[in-house]
Amino acid sequence: ASASSPSPSPTSLSPPQIPMELHETNRANLIKSLQEHLSSSSRPLQAFVFLQGGEEQTRHCTDHTELFRQESYFAYLFGVREPGFYGAIDVATGESILFAPRLPAEYAVWLGEIKPLSFFKERYMVSMVFYTDEIAKVLHDRFQGSGKPMLFLLHGLNTDSNKYSKPADFEGIEKFKTDLNTLHPILTECRVFKSDMELALIQFANDISSEAHVEVMRKTKVGMKEYQLESMFLHHTYMYGGCRHCSYTCICATGDNSSVLHYGHAAAPNDKTRILPVYSDLRFLMLQDGDMALLDMGAEYHFYGSDITCSFPAVLIAHNAVISSMKPGVSWVDMHQLAEKLILKSLKRGCLLVGDVDEMMAERLGSVFMPHGLGHFLGIDTHDPGGYLKGAKRPSESGLKALRTSRELQEGMVITVEPGCYFIDALLIPAMESSHTSKFFDCEEIGRFKGFGGVRIESDMHVTANGCVNMTKVPRETWEIEGVMAGESWPLKRNFVCS
Amino acid sequence: ASASSPSPSPTSLSPPQIPMELHETNRANLIKSLQEHLSSSSRPLQAFVFLQGGEEQTRHCTDHTELFRQESYFAYLFGVREPGFYGAIDVATGESILFAPRLPAEYAVWLGEIKPLSFFKERYMVSMVFYTDEIAKVLHDRFQGSGKPMLFLLHGLNTDSNKYSKPADFEGIEKFKTDLNTLHPILTECRVFKSDMELALIQFANDISSEAHVEVMRKTKVGMKEYQLESMFLHHTYMYGGCRHCSYTCICATGDNSSVLHYGHAAAPNDKTRILPVYSDLRFLMLQDGDMALLDMGAEYHFYGSDITCSFPAVLIAHNAVISSMKPGVSWVDMHQLAEKLILKSLKRGCLLVGDVDEMMAERLGSVFMPHGLGHFLGIDTHDPGGYLKGAKRPSESGLKALRTSRELQEGMVITVEPGCYFIDALLIPAMESSHTSKFFDCEEIGRFKGFGGVRIESDMHVTANGCVNMTKVPRETWEIEGVMAGESWPLKRNFVCS
Ligand SMILES: [Mn+2]
Ligand SMILES: [Mn+2]
Repeated sequence: ASASSPSPSPTSLSPPQIPMELHETNRANLIKSLQEHLSSSSRPLQAFVFLQGGEEQTRHCTDHTELFRQESYFAYLFGVREPGFYGAIDVATGESILFAPRLPAEYAVWLGEIKPLSFFKERYMVSMVFYTDEIAKVLHDRFQGSGKPMLFLLHGLNTDSNKYSKPADFEGIEKFKTDLNTLHPILTECRVFKSDMELALIQFANDISSEAHVEVMRKTKVGMKEYQLESMFLHHTYMYGGCRHCSYTCICATGDNSSVLHYGHAAAPNDKTRILPVYSDLRFLMLQDGDMALLDMGAEYHFYGSDITCSFPAVLIAHNAVISSMKPGVSWVDMHQLAEKLILKSLKRGCLLVGDVDEMMAERLGSVFMPHGLGHFLGIDTHDPGGYLKGAKRPSESGLKALRTSRELQEGMVITVEPGCYFIDALLIPAMESSHTSKFFDCEEIGRFKGFGGVRIESDMHVTANGCVNMTKVPRETWEIEGVMAGESWPLKRNFVCS
Repeated sequence: ASASSPSPSPTSLSPPQIPMELHETNRANLIKSLQEHLSSSSRPLQAFVFLQGGEEQTRHCTDHTELFRQESYFAYLFGVREPGFYGAIDVATGESILFAPRLPAEYAVWLGEIKPLSFFKERYMVSMVFYTDEIAKVLHDRFQGSGKPMLFLLHGLNTDSNKYSKPADFEGIEKFKTDLNTLHPILTECRVFKSDMELALIQFANDISSEAHVEVMRKTKVGMKEYQLESMFLHHTYMYGGCRHCSYTCICATGDNSSVLHYGHAAAPNDKTRILPVYSDLRFLMLQDGDMALLDMGAEYHFYGSDITCSFPAVLIAHNAVISSMKPGVSWVDMHQLAEKLILKSLKRGCLLVGDVDEMMAERLGSVFMPHGLGHFLGIDTHDPGGYLKGAKRPSESGLKALRTSRELQEGMVITVEPGCYFIDALLIPAMESSHTSKFFDCEEIGRFKGFGGVRIESDMHVTANGCVNMTKVPRETWEIEGVMAGESWPLKRNFVCS
């Protein structure tokens, strides 16, 4: 009905079907690992894995409901989108049971049709469904062992937040034996290795987010506010990808804001106006006059996420070198140090640093410019769990201690590679004053970068048998970014440009 | 840098400056009321109003941070956007004190510059700012009375959620006298009456949301998913209005989903595909073959919100009649019944109902078709507080008991008018079977509306001295909607059309 002329579709993608078999496979993987673990210590298999899903939250004392997003472990095993569920898996048989909340009659008026239990059984492909007020009875009835039925509850440390997951609780739990130690490490380790179905969702989240990044590059205009870039990203991923949630709050930082690693939160919202071109056409890190943009934005699709950062390609050499080196057996700490070394070298080449790079490494100078870890597992959580196995020690050295994992790479992992280089006064000034490291700095050259901010490039990598696959497809080289900003299609039809 | 031809700007608006004097005025209003109240009962004015702001939340055990939005009472008095603050007001002098969290040094690396206290003093126009670990000392030092200093804490019932606001808590609170009863009703009553500065923000939220509704009408195409309409709305209000938050989760319901009053939540996401035109060109409620769209979407700007519903104009007569009758002194219960009566009349005219409308009213038949209240106060919360003063009784009759307020209108209130008419099986079937009401139904005619869903029209009204002003400017009449959908500018250049 509109009078405007048709324009080419802004997307080549459409939201894929969601296979609930994915969660069936996740459950089967868990039960296999758990059975092996129990058998190896001669413990009985007559027990249930038992998890509590998330609850809808309201804002303070009001009736404002926050949009619900399922707790991640529960999402992994059951894929349930609704709040208020519990789930059990019979360890001996693998049978799965969902417990749905018994909704009051007025729910039908305000919140929609009250779905029968059979609806959830079919949708989530579980063996059976009961109400949450039947948990104690159902599990007692179905228990094949002797004595009180055993429940494996989820309790363990999240090594990114340093918080503990809360074990399930329900009326009648005192009629059960409970084990708080066994489940968490085994389930967490299952989540570290992605199945093909999981990879397909992460790939879609990457595809739609990559496309949205390209769209933002294309539509960014001089004088826009940072949040307008965020809005374009959110719109593209929801409109064309059906992604209602992002993996994390968008970071749309320009100029000196780009040295704030987690910019974008409520106390530093994406609300600055940039007068200069946001993607600058700077050819080299060393030139000034132009605002850097650092855009860290990723959508999630059916719980599985993406985590993508685009910015000026100053750290591209480090990014690419790490990717070339990644394969099973490689230590992530080594990869982090490889990135650090290449960043220090490039700063030395640019005359910001002077002296021996190995000496700089020994003094941990890399962490002044890249205080965060090189990357993290990615999946249902942006910082997916499993970075440190029980008993594994975090490195204590500056920079390395920020690593969210110190593990060796293994086939099936999905991990981000996100080298960055920032000029952060809070780190730079002490280092320039320290007797250990002051000698490395050319203070005049460094001074020129005050207010420069920072850069980061981030891709999501799938570790394969012989190497790795980059799931993120966005313009990275300066000439690619410039081509896209000038309206060329992406991927570019040409693959080289003289400048 | 783009090669595409320039198109007309999709907006005529831009985000207004935010006057922090607004919160200064709010504080002054509170202190004036509180002083009057205390004086009238001969209580001393030596005391502090003391509130705790909201805290940032993480998702379960992960480090995923939810985007922070300030607690509404704290937002009203202080306008603070950052988490972790406390605020005090000296009741005798009106002096205001903010307490900011003392951020650890690493905050500067991850979350941005640590702002000095003077930054917050200037930004939020308060008398002084200290750290939260100084609360007990500062308030003791500044207390002018004798004995333990008195704190008026916020504690009271939210009559929409039925939950109680949580009074402030901090280390050392045992060194104070606390009063939990005085503050809440007085502060709540202050929030009921909007100042000009508050009205200006609500007006902007209305303007940008109205414009976004028009944009959605224009761009909606056959075969779109409901969430694509939501995405267009969110994008328009953020991109051009700087509205990062919505007042509530968007309700984008088509077809039978439009009878679900709070559609859009996680268990009923806006995820259906509509094959038929979404805004149907039906001229009369009675015709079939076409999908209704019911779009209830409103953005908020600096905490102040809007709440706007567009749909097929079947309830426009009720909407307009209520608005024509609104002025100070009018009872909201009467307005609700006026809407009910007009809806019943229209259903009778359409032959769905038979018999005497007054008899239907006596049997509360209106609540079968409109089970929710006619409207609610609007402000920093979508369901702004103050609907029932302490001791006020909720009506007990069906339909009327759903009213979020039963008060008489007064100048300065902002209240929504949202008559609706729904075909909800859970209500309709019992009413058609009841011996009291079965005689009113023409079952065959009603049967034709199975799966029809529902309609609602919602505007935000400012009650003035002599009447009221409609702050919402969206197409309401069928011919207006059709004009906009066909590409005409809004407001329409013509003001009548023959069809
Ligand atoms: Mn990352
Ligand atoms: Mn409303």
